Amino acid sequence: MTAGTPADETTDTETAIMEATYRALQKHGYADLSISNIADEFEMSKSLLYYHYEDKDELLVAFLDHIIGRFSEDIAVDAWTDPEVQLRSFFDRLLPTTLATDRREFQVALFELRAQAPHHETYRERFTTTDRLIRETIAEYITAGIEENDFRDVDPDETAQLFLSVINGGMLERVTTDDSDPIEDLRGALDDYVSRYLTVAEPI
Amino acid sequence: MTAGTPADETTDTETAIMEATYRALQKHGYADLSISNIADEFEMSKSLLYYHYEDKDELLVAFLDHIIGRFSEDIAVDAWTDPEVQLRSFFDRLLPTTLATDRREFQVALFELRAQAPHHETYRERFTTTDRLIRETIAEYITAGIEENDFRDVDPDETAQLFLSVINGGMLERVTTDDSDPIEDLRGALDDYVSRYLTVAEPI
Repeated sequence: MTAGTPADETTDTETAIMEATYRALQKHGYADLSISNIADEFEMSKSLLYYHYEDKDELLVAFLDHIIGRFSEDIAVDAWTDPEVQLRSFFDRLLPTTLATDRREFQVALFELRAQAPHHETYRERFTTTDRLIRETIAEYITAGIEENDFRDVDPDETAQLFLSVINGGMLERVTTDDSDPIEDLRGALDDYVSRYLTVAEPI
Repeated sequence: MTAGTPADETTDTETAIMEATYRALQKHGYADLSISNIADEFEMSKSLLYYHYEDKDELLVAFLDHIIGRFSEDIAVDAWTDPEVQLRSFFDRLLPTTLATDRREFQVALFELRAQAPHHETYRERFTTTDRLIRETIAEYITAGIEENDFRDVDPDETAQLFLSVINGGMLERVTTDDSDPIEDLRGALDDYVSRYLTVAEPI
């Protein structure tokens, strides 16, 4: 497909709408989000936005699909990199010790959205997909580490579930408590777990 | 103080209001909760409810204080019980492998409330208190276990933070995803962590 075809234009428009949604969620949060304040962040003709999505709900589901797609490209397992290095860089990515204001505001909006999931089947499906993606990725790192004799023979699925809950819990605590940094202690504990338990000591 | 004094009556009324709030949260969730549907669950004179609390917000903060108070009595560390037993029973309590419908609905409402915390200082203070309470209790179990040479010399605060995030993450996933039981894998991983890493093997 060459540049400038209608399909490309659709993709460009959709990407621009997703970026506008991201900015609007950061500024207004989920509760105060409206098609109108997404339109305010959108640089193309507003009618395009209304043409593509019927309501806020449909747009937010498309937005969740968009970030899941981006995230899954981002975390793809690299068979050439040491599993321990990949696991640690995954923690760095999802639980960075400092969080820029715009990322924090986005995470707040995601939790507001997630709090709707118990009553909202389509949102719940998306958070199920995100959690599975994280769990399966970590399980692959762990399986690779066990195969290479770098990691102890833990159960990869159970251990991946433990790490997933640590990540979800840490992200939740970071934005819903006043404790300056639960993440620092958390990262310390994860390092300890990986170094002293998961990793098999090199023979001396 | 003897039974039937005005102070007792206040306490009884407050307890009845807290129970009505619990039932109303289960039935309606946070978003649809109103003083009026709390009043519907309240068996005493409605005017008592309006007399005690100015609005839904004030009542919910009192409700959070009430459940924090109950919870802190409930989890008090018992110096006579084995730390490993206490730690495992703490996981049983907070991450039971099955969750009755009424408990599930209550946890859903708590997460809806927690999702407000980033923008709501008083709620945020309460969730900070709850998290600290859990973290400090676990840290006490771990410290006691290390002193009794049952546990390895991990950092009690970091390890307690890891367990807290696992608990918060697991509770969140349980109510916001379709996965039938993330908790079963999680409990397996926690058992493995406690048995194979935290606990020092008995000399043979």
